[in-house]
Formats: sequence, C-alpha cells, structure tokens
Amino acid sequence: MTPAEQRDLLQAVADHRLDVTAADQQLTEAQQPLDFADLDLERPQRTGYPETVFGEGKTAEQISQIIPRLRARTPVVLCTRVTATKAQAVQQRLADQQDIRYVAAARCLVAGEIPAPTTTGTIAIVTAGTSDIPVAEEAAVTAQAFGNRISRVYDVGVAGIHRLFAKLDVIRQAKVVIVAAGMDGALASVVGGLVASPVIALPTSIGYGSSYHGLSALLTMLNSCAEGVTVVNIDNGFGAAYAASVMNHL
Amino acid sequence: MTPAEQRDLLQAVADHRLDVTAADQQLTEAQQPLDFADLDLERPQRTGYPETVFGEGKTAEQISQIIPRLRARTPVVLCTRVTATKAQAVQQRLADQQDIRYVAAARCLVAGEIPAPTTTGTIAIVTAGTSDIPVAEEAAVTAQAFGNRISRVYDVGVAGIHRLFAKLDVIRQAKVVIVAAGMDGALASVVGGLVASPVIALPTSIGYGSSYHGLSALLTMLNSCAEGVTVVNIDNGFGAAYAASVMNHL
Amino acid sequence: MTPAEQRDLLQAVADHRLDVTAADQQLTEAQQPLDFADLDLERPQRTGYPETVFGEGKTAEQISQIIPRLRARTPVVLCTRVTATKAQAVQQRLADQQDIRYVAAARCLVAGEIPAPTTTGTIAIVTAGTSDIPVAEEAAVTAQAFGNRISRVYDVGVAGIHRLFAKLDVIRQAKVVIVAAGMDGALASVVGGLVASPVIALPTSIGYGSSYHGLSALLTMLNSCAEGVTVVNIDNGFGAAYAASVMNHL
Amino acid sequence: MTPAEQRDLLQAVADHRLDVTAADQQLTEAQQPLDFADLDLERPQRTGYPETVFGEGKTAEQISQIIPRLRARTPVVLCTRVTATKAQAVQQRLADQQDIRYVAAARCLVAGEIPAPTTTGTIAIVTAGTSDIPVAEEAAVTAQAFGNRISRVYDVGVAGIHRLFAKLDVIRQAKVVIVAAGMDGALASVVGGLVASPVIALPTSIGYGSSYHGLSALLTMLNSCAEGVTVVNIDNGFGAAYAASVMNHL
Amino acid sequence: MTPAEQRDLLQAVADHRLDVTAADQQLTEAQQPLDFADLDLERPQRTGYPETVFGEGKTAEQISQIIPRLRARTPVVLCTRVTATKAQAVQQRLADQQDIRYVAAARCLVAGEIPAPTTTGTIAIVTAGTSDIPVAEEAAVTAQAFGNRISRVYDVGVAGIHRLFAKLDVIRQAKVVIVAAGMDGALASVVGGLVASPVIALPTSIGYGSSYHGLSALLTMLNSCAEGVTVVNIDNGFGAAYAASVMNHL
Amino acid sequence: MTPAEQRDLLQAVADHRLDVTAADQQLTEAQQPLDFADLDLERPQRTGYPETVFGEGKTAEQISQIIPRLRARTPVVLCTRVTATKAQAVQQRLADQQDIRYVAAARCLVAGEIPAPTTTGTIAIVTAGTSDIPVAEEAAVTAQAFGNRISRVYDVGVAGIHRLFAKLDVIRQAKVVIVAAGMDGALASVVGGLVASPVIALPTSIGYGSSYHGLSALLTMLNSCAEGVTVVNIDNGFGAAYAASVMNHL
Amino acid sequence: MTPAEQRDLLQAVADHRLDVTAADQQLTEAQQPLDFADLDLERPQRTGYPETVFGEGKTAEQISQIIPRLRARTPVVLCTRVTATKAQAVQQRLADQQDIRYVAAARCLVAGEIPAPTTTGTIAIVTAGTSDIPVAEEAAVTAQAFGNRISRVYDVGVAGIHRLFAKLDVIRQAKVVIVAAGMDGALASVVGGLVASPVIALPTSIGYGSSYHGLSALLTMLNSCAEGVTVVNIDNGFGAAYAASVMNHL
Amino acid sequence: MTPAEQRDLLQAVADHRLDVTAADQQLTEAQQPLDFADLDLERPQRTGYPETVFGEGKTAEQISQIIPRLRARTPVVLCTRVTATKAQAVQQRLADQQDIRYVAAARCLVAGEIPAPTTTGTIAIVTAGTSDIPVAEEAAVTAQAFGNRISRVYDVGVAGIHRLFAKLDVIRQAKVVIVAAGMDGALASVVGGLVASPVIALPTSIGYGSSYHGLSALLTMLNSCAEGVTVVNIDNGFGAAYAASVMNHL
Repeated sequence: MTPAEQRDLLQAVADHRLDVTAADQQLTEAQQPLDFADLDLERPQRTGYPETVFGEGKTAEQISQIIPRLRARTPVVLCTRVTATKAQAVQQRLADQQDIRYVAAARCLVAGEIPAPTTTGTIAIVTAGTSDIPVAEEAAVTAQAFGNRISRVYDVGVAGIHRLFAKLDVIRQAKVVIVAAGMDGALASVVGGLVASPVIALPTSIGYGSSYHGLSALLTMLNSCAEGVTVVNIDNGFGAAYAASVMNHL
Repeated sequence: MTPAEQRDLLQAVADHRLDVTAADQQLTEAQQPLDFADLDLERPQRTGYPETVFGEGKTAEQISQIIPRLRARTPVVLCTRVTATKAQAVQQRLADQQDIRYVAAARCLVAGEIPAPTTTGTIAIVTAGTSDIPVAEEAAVTAQAFGNRISRVYDVGVAGIHRLFAKLDVIRQAKVVIVAAGMDGALASVVGGLVASPVIALPTSIGYGSSYHGLSALLTMLNSCAEGVTVVNIDNGFGAAYAASVMNHL
Repeated sequence: MTPAEQRDLLQAVADHRLDVTAADQQLTEAQQPLDFADLDLERPQRTGYPETVFGEGKTAEQISQIIPRLRARTPVVLCTRVTATKAQAVQQRLADQQDIRYVAAARCLVAGEIPAPTTTGTIAIVTAGTSDIPVAEEAAVTAQAFGNRISRVYDVGVAGIHRLFAKLDVIRQAKVVIVAAGMDGALASVVGGLVASPVIALPTSIGYGSSYHGLSALLTMLNSCAEGVTVVNIDNGFGAAYAASVMNHL
Repeated sequence: MTPAEQRDLLQAVADHRLDVTAADQQLTEAQQPLDFADLDLERPQRTGYPETVFGEGKTAEQISQIIPRLRARTPVVLCTRVTATKAQAVQQRLADQQDIRYVAAARCLVAGEIPAPTTTGTIAIVTAGTSDIPVAEEAAVTAQAFGNRISRVYDVGVAGIHRLFAKLDVIRQAKVVIVAAGMDGALASVVGGLVASPVIALPTSIGYGSSYHGLSALLTMLNSCAEGVTVVNIDNGFGAAYAASVMNHL
Repeated sequence: MTPAEQRDLLQAVADHRLDVTAADQQLTEAQQPLDFADLDLERPQRTGYPETVFGEGKTAEQISQIIPRLRARTPVVLCTRVTATKAQAVQQRLADQQDIRYVAAARCLVAGEIPAPTTTGTIAIVTAGTSDIPVAEEAAVTAQAFGNRISRVYDVGVAGIHRLFAKLDVIRQAKVVIVAAGMDGALASVVGGLVASPVIALPTSIGYGSSYHGLSALLTMLNSCAEGVTVVNIDNGFGAAYAASVMNHL
Repeated sequence: MTPAEQRDLLQAVADHRLDVTAADQQLTEAQQPLDFADLDLERPQRTGYPETVFGEGKTAEQISQIIPRLRARTPVVLCTRVTATKAQAVQQRLADQQDIRYVAAARCLVAGEIPAPTTTGTIAIVTAGTSDIPVAEEAAVTAQAFGNRISRVYDVGVAGIHRLFAKLDVIRQAKVVIVAAGMDGALASVVGGLVASPVIALPTSIGYGSSYHGLSALLTMLNSCAEGVTVVNIDNGFGAAYAASVMNHL
Repeated sequence: MTPAEQRDLLQAVADHRLDVTAADQQLTEAQQPLDFADLDLERPQRTGYPETVFGEGKTAEQISQIIPRLRARTPVVLCTRVTATKAQAVQQRLADQQDIRYVAAARCLVAGEIPAPTTTGTIAIVTAGTSDIPVAEEAAVTAQAFGNRISRVYDVGVAGIHRLFAKLDVIRQAKVVIVAAGMDGALASVVGGLVASPVIALPTSIGYGSSYHGLSALLTMLNSCAEGVTVVNIDNGFGAAYAASVMNHL
Repeated sequence: MTPAEQRDLLQAVADHRLDVTAADQQLTEAQQPLDFADLDLERPQRTGYPETVFGEGKTAEQISQIIPRLRARTPVVLCTRVTATKAQAVQQRLADQQDIRYVAAARCLVAGEIPAPTTTGTIAIVTAGTSDIPVAEEAAVTAQAFGNRISRVYDVGVAGIHRLFAKLDVIRQAKVVIVAAGMDGALASVVGGLVASPVIALPTSIGYGSSYHGLSALLTMLNSCAEGVTVVNIDNGFGAAYAASVMNHL
C-alpha cells in the first residue's frame, strides 16, 4: 500500500465511504508479515537506502506481494533481474498501480517515479563493448533511482583505445566512474590510470571459452595495476551503482 | 635527490663549495632514466597521488635507486611489501637519508614524514582476527601517508558478534570503512549491513585447507548480500587504503 | 505392497475371496528384486532410518516400482527432488495408494502419513533469504518424516542483522540448528557464534556470477570462524535434515 | 592470571605480604585489553565452550599474553597448531605456569589439567591411514579438553576393509564418530553406512598429485552417498572435535 | 557397403542384372573419401579393434555416411552417444540395412550382429547406484561388441556395503572389473581392495552441487588408496569397456 | 551504405532523380553514430584490417545497423558467430544488399565479395576430428576474407597418426599452420614438431567430462613441448585466422 | 623379523644358545601390533600382492618398524617416496638387515632381493622427456619387485616424433605399456593409437606455469582420443606399475 | 665436442701428436647416446632451429653431457632456466670450453657466440613492469641466439599509459612484438589494438593473491579483445621468442 493509497483509505473512512471494519482489515492485511520474506523495512533509517528487490529466483506472486509493502516506506521501489514475462505478470497483478513500468534494456521493474538528482556529482558508466550494455543499464537505472546524475560512455574498449581518449573528458568530469567490461576486462585498468576519482570495476559475463562467464574479467580487475580500483561481482550492475551512489553522496 | 638536497646542492654551487662540473654531473645522474624502470613521475598531476613502490620482487638495489627519484616529486615515498632484511639493506644504501624508517607491523618502508591529516573524515580499518593485522597495518600506513585520519577496530569477527556491536559507534563515525578478514570473510557482509558509508572489503590469505589462501574470503565478499560493498585483491592493504583515501577526499 | 495391503491380501485368502495361486503370485511379484536397483531394505535395522528415494535421475516408472517395496518396511516413504510432472506420473501409476501426496514447496513426494514427533527437541531451520526456501523446505519435510519437531526462521540474512536478533530466541530454543544460505553464506558463522547447539550449515546454489552455484557459500561455511559448524553438500536439504535428526534423537 | 594466582595475590594482600598499590597494578595489568586481540571472554556463558587459541600465524609473544587472560575464565586453555619451537618459546615466557605442556603428536599446547570426562558417551576417532594421525590427535586432545571420552581406531582405510570390520564394534559403541581421511576420503562413506550415530567427516591434506591438498577427500565427503554425514574443513581436527563434543553433550 | 552387398553387386554384374558402368559408379561412390572425415580404416590391422563412431556432435547425415564405409571392414559397427531421435533418423536413411538396431539403455546404435564371446574371461560391470546404469550399459554393449562375456552387478554402493559383499563372488570371478560410480566414487576403492584382477574406475556425472558433474568421483578414483586402480574419463563407458576388452584378451 | 550505394546516391542527385534534402538526410543517417556502439572505423588505417562483427550477443537489429556503416570502409564485412535464424533476420532487414550470404558451416555472415588472395603463401587449417570442423571453417572464411589462400586438412588426429603423415606435405607447404583440436589437443604438439612454420594452436570445446569444454585442449596447447606454438582462446577460429593472416602477410 | 631370522632364532633355542624366555620375548615383540599402523598382512592372500610402504609422511622410525613385520610375509618389501636422508636413517636402524638398499633414481628403499621375472610378458616404460625419469624409475623398480620384465624407452616425446618411431618395435613387443609424460602429456595419445596392448597413462608434475603441477598432462590423458588408455594419479609411478603388473600376470 | 675440437683432434692425429686408438676412443665417446636423453639432433634440418636445453629439473651433470653433443651441430647452444649455482657447476665441468657464459638477468647459459642478426626485422620486447624483466630477458637472449635484432621497451604498463605512447614508435617499427605482463595482463590488449604486426602475449607469474601465479594474466590475454594476439605459457620467455623468431624469418 503506497502512502497515497493509505491516505485515500483514511479519507474514505473519514468520508464514510468505507466502514471502519473493512478499512481495518485492509490496513492489517497490507502490514502483516509475509510468510516467505522478512523485509528489512528499517533499512532506509540505517543505511539511507531502501531495500531493493532482487527479482531472480522470486516468483511474480512473491514480487507482487513485496512491492506494495516496500512502497509504504520509499517513493520508488526498484526490482532488478526481472524478465519481460515476469514483469508483465507483476504488472497485471498490481494493475491498480499505474506507475510501475518495465525498463527492458536494464531488465528492471520500477514502481514510482525516478526522483530528480539529489547530487551535483555525476556517475560515469563506461563499457568496453556493446554486449556489456544490459549490465550497464542496470547500473544506470539503479543510480538514477537513488538520485544520481549519470553519463553513459559505451563501447570504448581498449582494442581501439582512441575511442576512449575521445571521451576522456566526460569520464574525468564524473565524481565516480563505473567501468563494465567482459572478456579481458582491461578497460578498468586503463581508465583507473587516467582518472583521479574512485573507479568501480564491474566485470561482465560477456565472452566465451576461457572467459569462463566473467572469471577472466573479474581476475583482471582484482589484479588491476591501476591503484584504487575496487571490484563488484560479475554482472552486478545494481551493486556497482549502489556503491557508486554512496560515494557520490559523500 | 630530495628537494632539500637539490637546494643544498645549488647553494653549495652559489657558495663555491661545489664546482659547476661536479654539480652538473650529480644533477644529471639523479635525473637520468633507470634502465629497469620507467617511473610514472607525472602521476601526482594526473591522479593526485604519487607513485608508490611495490617492494615484492624488487631488489634492495632497485628500490634504493627508485626512492630518491620519487622523493624529488613528493614529500613522502611509500614502499610496501618489504621484508625486514631488504628494508635494512635499503637503509644502508641510502644511509644519508635519515628519515627513512621501516614500519615492521605493516612491512612498509617510509621515506619522509607522514603528513598531518588533510581531511576531517576518518577511515575505519576493521579486522576479523588478530592474524589479519599485518594487512590492516599496510592499509593504515598507506592511508596515513595519503593524509587520512584512521581508526583501528581489530579482532571483532562474527563468531563473537557482541565484540563488533561494542565498537559499532567508532565504525559508524568513519566516512569510509575497510573490512579485512580471512577464512569465511563474513565480517564484510555484517558491517556492510550496519553502516551507511562505503565499505571496502579486503580479503586476507589467513586460513588453511579450503580457504585456499584467501579465495574463500574473496568469494564471500564478492557475493556479499550487503549492498554497496566493493572488493580489492587478497592481502591488498595498500589498494584498499588507496581507494579509501580517494573516497575520503571526495 | 504396504503392510495393510499385505494383511488385506491374506484376509482375502482366508475369506476365500482370493485363491491361493493368485495370492502367491501377487506376493512373489511384490517381493521380487528390481533389475535396476538393489534396495537397502535392512537399512532401518542398521541405522534406524529407512532408505529414502533420491528422485533426480530416476524415471517415474522406476520410482513407482521402488515406493511399494520400501513401504513394506516403513510407515512413510520419502522421495526427494521430484518435479511436479514426475510426481503426477508416479501418483497416476500408484493411483490405488491414496496417501501419496506431493509437497510442491519442497519438491518431495511423500507416501504415508508424516508421523507425530518422537522427540521433544526441535530442529530450527533458518534461511538467509527467500530464495533459499525450497532447499529449507526439503529439509523441513525430511525432518518431519523422521519424527522431529521443527521451527522455521526464514529470510534473516546478515545484511539486516536485526531481523536475526529478533528471532534469536526461537533459534536458541532448538536442540539442533540448520542454516541455509547462498551467496556469501555468512549467516552460518553468525548463528554459529550465537548458539550452544550443533549447527549444520547448508549452502544453497542461490546467487550468480562468482557465487559459482553455491561454491562461494560452501567455502564460507567450511571456513567458518564460528567453531563447531559442520557442512553438507550444496542444496542438500535432505542430508542436513537427516544429520539433524540423528543428533536430535541422541 | 589463573584463579589460583588471583587468590594467592589477594591472600598476600590480606597477609600484608603485598602492598595494595602493587597488587592493584598487577590486577589491572592482567585485566587490561590486549592491543592486538579482543578476546571473547563471554564465550563460555554464551556457548558453553571457552575460546581456544588458534596458534598458526600468532607469535609466541602473542600466545603468551593470551593464555593467562583466558585461564582466568576456564580450567584448561587449549592452543592448537603450535610448532615445537613456538611451544618451547611460550613455555619459557610462562615459566611460572608449570602446568603448560606440549602434546607433540597433536601439535597442541595445553595449559591446565585435562578434565575428567563429563559424559558417558564416547567419541570414536577413526583414521584411514597412519599419515592422518596428527590431525586425528588434534581432535583427540580437543575432545578430551572439552570433557569427552574418546576411542581411537587408526589405519583402517577401505583398501583393506577387513581391518575396519574388525573394529566395527568399537566404532558402533560411540555416540559420535569422527572419520579422518585423505586421498580418496572413501572411509567416511563406508563408516557412514554402517553406524547409526552422527558421523563427522574430517578430510586431511594427505596425498599428492590430484589429491590437491585434501580437495579430493573434501569433495568425496561432501558427496557421500551415506546419509547424515557432515563435513568440516581440511585438517580441521579441532573443529571436528568441537562439533562432536557439542553433539556428545546433547 | 557391407561385404555381402559388395558380393551381391558383383553377382548382379555377372548375371547381367547390373551393367558395368552403374556397378563401377556404385563401387566408386562407396569407396570415395568423405570430405568431413578421414576414417581410420587400417585401425583393425594396427590395434585389433575397428574404429567406433562417437555419435555426439555428428549429424545423422554424417553417421549415415560413416557406417557403411566401416561395415566394409568389420562385422559389427558401434556408434555411441546417439539420442533416440538421431538413431531413428539414421535408421531411416539406412533403411536397407535391417540389422541396425538402437540400444536405448546404452544410447548406442549397433550395425550388425553382436558376435559370440571370443574369450572365456568375464568383464564384471559394477555400479554404485541406479543412476549410473546408462553409462554402465554403454560399457556393456561395447564389451559385448568386442567379443567379451560380461556380468552386471548394479546398485551396490558403499552406503549399504552388505549389498556389495552379497555379490562379491560374481565380481571376483571376473577377469577384469569396471566400477562405475558418481557422487563420492568410493566404490572403486572398496572393490579395488577386494579383488586381484585389474579394476577400471569409471566416474559418472551423477550427483549435484559439489559433485561438479563427476569431478568429485574422478578425483576420488585417481586418489584411490586401493592399488592398481586405473581411471578413464567421466561417463566414458565406451573407453572403460575398450580398455577392459584389451585386458580380457591378453 | 556501401561505396557503390553512395555513388549511386550522388549520381541520382546529379541526375535530379533525388532532391538534395532527401539525399542529405540519407547520407546523414548513414553516418550518424549508433547509440549502442562506437565503431572503430579507423581500424583499417591503424592495423590494416577492418573491424569485424562478433555476432554472439548482438541482436539482428544491431547487426543490421552495423553492417552498412562498416561497408562504407571495406569491401567485405565479416560477421561471426551468427545462428541461421539470426542470419536470416539480418538478410531480411538488409534485403536490398543482395551480396550478403550466410556460410552455415562456419556460422558466418559475409557482406560483399570474398577478395582474391593477396598473398602467395598458404594458411593450412588442420583439425583432429570431424567435430572440430565448424571452428575450422570459421577460421577458413576469416582467412579468405582477409585475402589468404587456404588449404584444409581435416580429421587427422593423433590416435591414427598415419593419417597425419599422409598429408604432411600439404601442411609443410603452408606458410602458417592452424591446428584445431578438442579433447586431448595433442595434435598441435605433433604438428609443431614436424613443421618449420609458425603454428597457431586453436583449442576447441569438443569433448565431454573432464575436457571441461576445451580447458583440457587449451592446457595441452599452452604446455606444448613443441617449441614455437602459440595459442588462442577456445573455439576462437576467427582470432586464429586473424593472427595467421597477419603472419602470412609479413 | 624375516623368515630366515625366525628360523635362526628357533635354531638358537634348540642349540641352547638362546633361552626360551628371551626367545619368547623377541618373537612376541616382532609380532605385536604397531600403535600407529594396522598393517594389511592378509593382502597377499587377497590380492596376490604384498602391502607396500608409501614412505612420504612416515618417519624413519615408523618405516623401520613396519619393514620387519612385512618381511615376515613376503620376500621383498618395497618402500616408495623415500628421500636419501630418510633412507639412510632407516638403513642405520635396521643395520642388521644387510639386504636393504636404496635405489636413488627411483627414490625407493628395497628390502630383500628383487625376484627373477615370473612372466614372459614385458612391461614397456616410455617417457616423453628426461625429467620424467624419476617417476618412470619408481615404476620400473615396482614392476621388477612384482616379478615383471621391463623395457625402458626414455625421452621420446612428440616434439621430435621420429624418436618414438625409431623405438616403436620395442614398445609394440611389450604386453603392457606405461607412458609417463608431463607438460602437454600428448605422448600417451600417440602411443595409444599405435599399439594393441593396454596403455597406462602416467601424468607427471613436470612443467611450469599452466601445467599446474601435472594437471595439464592429467587432463590430456583422461581425454585421450586414443581408445583404451587408462590413467593413474600424477607422479604415481608405483600405481602405474602395480596395475601393469596385474595386467601382465593375466 | 665442438666442430673446432673435432678438427683439432684430427689434426693431432695427422701430426702424430695423438695415436689412432686414443682418437678413436674420444670420438666414439663423444658420439655415443646418453642413457637418460634421446637428443633430437635432426631438429635443425627439420625445423631450422637447434634443440635447446630446458635446464629446470636437469642436473649440472646432465647439462654438461648434453651441451657438447649439441655443439657438434650448431654454433650456439642455449640452456634456459639455469640457476647461478647450477651454471657455475656446468662451467666448471666444461672448463675447457671458454666460450660458455651465464647471462644472469635471463637465467640462461649460452655456449658459443651469439650470431649477428640474420634478419632486418626487429622483435620488440615490451613489459608492463620491472618485475617482468627476467622473463623478458629470457626472450631477449633467445631471440638473439636465433639471429634476430631486438628492441627493449620495459615498464610501460597501462596504469600510466602515457609511458606506452611515448614509446609507440619503437614498438610499431618492429616486425613482431612480444608483450610480457603479469597481474592484470592488460598491456597485451592495448598494444594489440595499436600495432599491425603479430603480437605474442607472454603472461608472467608476477602478482599475488588472486593473480594465481599468472593465471589472471593468462586468461586476460586469451580473452584479449584486440584481434590477432596469440599466447604462450606463463613465464615462457623462450617459447615467445622462438615463435617470434619463426615469424621474423618469414
């Protein structure tokens, strides 16, 4: 139940459009604990960030029950790793919440309005190739949902390094930089040596053969000879953006 | 040649205590390129941080040649991963530079004075056990060399989690938190869920058997269910502190 | 052939409702060895526990032949890792055995009545997230089938550790604790440090990227800095519950 | 400071053999926190077991400071993974504590008297080969320090399985069984199928080539086809005994 | 073209039922090299065994072209790793060769009659579980195709070791023993310690989680503490039987 | 837009068949940057080779937009790792470009005419088995697209080494040799010891069980005891041919 | 106590050179069980082969106690993996047994006379390089101790394959072939394709970098495209020879 | 025996300074086969390159016997991976061959004069750091021994990429480029995208933690997004140079 819905309900009671017993039942239902999840509703108070829903491995039914409970605490609820099919199923179950939309490029479901940026600093999201874009877009949506400005610099891998230099200004203007790369993952080291801001290396599972689903890029990034690069899990666009947002709000 | 030494040399020329030919030769020698290393002397301009010497795999002879060249550009030169024996050999070769000291607990050689903190924010360095301390101390010396205040919270692993809660205030007051842990590496996730600041997870090679020299802790940290945790290489105390310093100076 | 069926058959013979030749043939058939399996029918005598059927990799046909033979020796037959489709096929083949039901949440087929608890001690089954629940439910059904009381504490992962503390009483009242977690697997260490009872760590394959299908959680648990934690195979809810039951009956 | 020493000190004060200032200073010193360790002194209250010292990676100096503090709370302090040389150094530093002895076969340092068994149940410690004995002995000393009766059944690996059957009675009489094996680790499965008590599988690093320092045995044990077997880390004799003791005291 | 077909063709020419040009063309076609394969037709002369077709990764079309060419040299052609669908497609293409049949349990296509045993020695094929049977059957068909007697001992894994002892006589009468097992793979070591004949350990991919698709069983078998056990690739029933046949014919 | 198309457009303008505004719009559109890719159009100038499209992970839509832009710079555009379905979708979208054809055996889409060889040297492409052919054909098409003569020597694996010797002349006449092999990958070492030209080892993912999708062949090739063998990624037919072409043009 | 020594003792009693009490004590001592080992003395009866001592990880003291007990049952006792230093220590302790000698090339200690060959068949031991010889020699001594004729074919790796062909006759005359190779391990496949006898592949830890201490050779051999090759553990010369001996005596 | 020594011997016979019997014996001795090695003396004829001695794992005695035999066929004998101590031992044994010298920086022993370059093309040897230099020097000595010109470009890793660009001209002038790098190995991709010549990537074992002794760099290089890069084994400076020489002589 969103705050608006709750206000509507109370107004309806005040207007005698809804009797107290029914209102009481609706409120109770919306607040009762889920038997499959113990939501971390105090999270915003503790860390400044609302709990986000990791959609992989959850059913549409479960997501549909979680979203309303989280909405009561935060203006925007983000649900990552959602397939188009599952997104549609959630949207149908929550048909009364018109402001839930699916961002296909990022495989994310967003309930509520993405807020206006709350910082002047920008998070640059850089990718080595075009295949890294879905992971980068997950990071982009996440960063925006958390109130950050972002800039995208895509497809500037080191095999044609002039492309990177052509966009170095944009990258250097950012307060925090995320570098997403699969295969050799070398872009993180090169960017790390060229900027003074924190660099978050985001390995992707792009590649084949001995890339081992992102292991190659992950190891490259952990062993970056550029100092000050930190690393998140393979394909973890959300985590990279979360960490970037924390830094951007410092 | 440190800036002070260079001034002394020029003064000696002015005072006719040193003839021009000899002075010229000394200056040339101090500036000529090393045949085994291509130092990144422009690094401070580009990234705001001086190049640091990774001592492992370098001979005392090589370190002794690198340090003076770097000193010309930066007030403090840090050399990590140096054994006591190698440190002594370097100190003997550079006996005229009295301000080089060896920090045994951190396995670091420091040339010049650690500067006073340049930020008000603090970097908290947290360890799970006592065996993680050498890596934590490498981070501590590095952070201080880069002008940061630090606070140490050692031996608060999750097996006795009350110890962590007893010191949570100190950790929460920090602007950036480094969590060093080996074995199960679980401390990073717990801390990550309790603070609002950026958390840098620093896996250590402490453990035996299936810890695989830090792999267990590394994977734990990469898969942290606490959002916003980023990770550096195993035992990379320097890298964790470098990244923390960049964030602390934002 | 269940014991009841066998008694019915003999009664039918006594009542001359079934002639001896037919009865003899039915009995022989029910007892003749399977050509694809050598059932361990003496298992209850040897270990106190009946043989259970691991359904993965067995056809509905094979399961349908094994269940009746095991039923002759034990009041309840448990068949784990059965898909809904396969379960339905078995139920159709064994349509005369009305007491076979499918527990979808646990992916288990249960033939016969789950017995009343035979111990006063409780087995607490704790999960880090909601995605770990199917594995936890496999453990729950197994523990109940073996005569144990259970308590469920789900979705209390360390990223929001207050949720765990809110339910610590329930966990501490248990005689044995099973902790199921994927990703960083850190919950096992935290629980292990907080309780005095045996803790069985149950890694799950939940996660992505460098979780490597449960390897991350498995290594975390094997390297738990909390003493006295023992570990079972990834996703092995049955094995965790079996071991817990043995301990609970000590 | 052991309880006896503390009583002696107070008696000396009462007898005016020691003035109050000196006594006060001694007491304060013995209680002041270590700067390198945050001992878990409440552990006995919380889990029923005293904190034990993992000696690997700690200096003799550190161990010598930890032991007296722990002795104040528990009659016997166990320090595992101590080399003979380090043990001697500790004994010299703590020369006034005559009851510290080194158990070479188990690589353990024991301060105080091993208590008499507090349970009637026995823990059987079984090994596949003679090379597994040091790990088994670490388990044996630990189990005894925690008040358990033990029985040793060594060198009964499956390559000559009659040796195991010859001693099956001893194993079956135990309330809990620890099975230590390297190489193929197959003994755990065989024992697991023959007993009704909990079996803790303890992989050892014995072997060469593709045993990968215990990985082979570890995987074997995690995949044991005998149900109810739980596993601890490679060479973790202490952990196996700790868990066994918890079970034995149920 | 089988030898019989070739004789028929020549007879047809002699009988003037087929003109020389057409016959010439048919013969040429049957003998011309395949553009995708360079068959090892001299293999029987060199090693005593005909080339066998590994069906995985080959199309029905390719298999249909290879079989006739091999049939010209050997009475029975074995094609392993063939799905039922692919087998049917091959049988349709080679509809004139009525003696090609599909052995579903072993996933093999057999062209020609399995010969009568050419040795008195028997190859025992032993499995730990019922899930190992498909691999064991691949070994069984292969061994028979190469002229060996076989005996099957299935589902005698070490978790219920009395089942193994009940059939030990059969195993000991064999001249060569193949032991197929997944999961812990422990059966190979136990059998290896009980027989005097060569034991070929055949790891299977049966299992889940940390069995890693047969890696666990493979490592167990390579590290067998029973001497004289040799190992083949995971699921390589054909290779185990080939090697066993060579030994059985010594 | 191909050079021919661009000329046609200009001619149409000159002939007043197309007005300037429309022509301008078409030209602008064809040159405007893609929002998902930053094509490396200067690549031919820098390395002598045009950028090639790696089709895996790109949509038909994306490929259809990239091809025309690359065609403007190079006579032939190669797109590797394209399924038949995706190829058809691209061909439909670019239906006006009749010279785009799909080479199924190599899973490649080729736009434009394969040029005549520009070198006299030949690249020999050798495979161990028939299953390695798709990877080898990817190499073949690539090599031809880059202006090389090629010779194919397929199915000459070391298990029947006489097949290799029968074709050694062809291999020795080549200026560069590519050896594609899966499973044991042994062919690269044997060929490497027999020829004087550069040998590029190309591991394929052919195999099962402990071949680990090409890891076995990859390690074999990296550890080749034949000197001078260099290695590319598993299944990287394109990369092997690219490197071979560079060498062939030296 | 060897059989000869036992006879001498009894004769001394008969001759009244030794009184009965002393003789009784000596006999008892020689037969009493070791507290650290449970020797498999019935092994010769069960498998036809005496227990052999794996010297790695055993002390000179332990080996010195084991050897006499085994000598009572078998004419020759083999102790593998013994360093020169440990061998000397054993020889000193057992100085009265003059027939114990150390075979340095094979790192084996041999007590008693190597018997004359008991078979007409030969075991060929083939190595790829000179560095593989120590492992090959362990196999050679073992094979001879078990009564086999052997032939050595060393340093015939595939990088210079003409060396192998020059000695193919010797290899083909053998009844069983052992192929020892490190690095790429390719020799096993080549030999496997050239002979009709059983081939035992023996990977060695020779190599560096990505040979991973024999893993590369091990995987190569497990994936051998030559049929009928079986594999033993890395550096397991003893195991290869044991298996070869069993085959050679068929 | 070098060709010069052989001529001297014959002249001594002609001059009656040496009698025929002694001369005959000396010649025979020099040509008789080694019992531990089967030298590939026809290698120069077959591949154009002499056999080189891999010194690791060979004794000084063995090397001292191999060198003279190889010298008879080739003007310069190269022995890689030789420690200073072993080199000295060889030089003492072959004290009459004054032209054997030890190149410490490359850990190589060189017998005979390094020839003048036989090609106009240059091989550039590029390293990321100073720690990679020993491996690079092994490549340098090897390349020179095989008649190549070389240029060294050391310490130009991507963390300070301007250092690379400063030396790009030198690298681009080379006909073949070797790139040696440890840790992230990213330099190979960057160089690969900037040059038109063949690039051989040479991973080194430099690094710590998750670099896994060169695995990180190896995977990076195998997955290089720069096309046309081929890879050799970790630390294989010799192999890289051998391959480069073959290409340089095309």
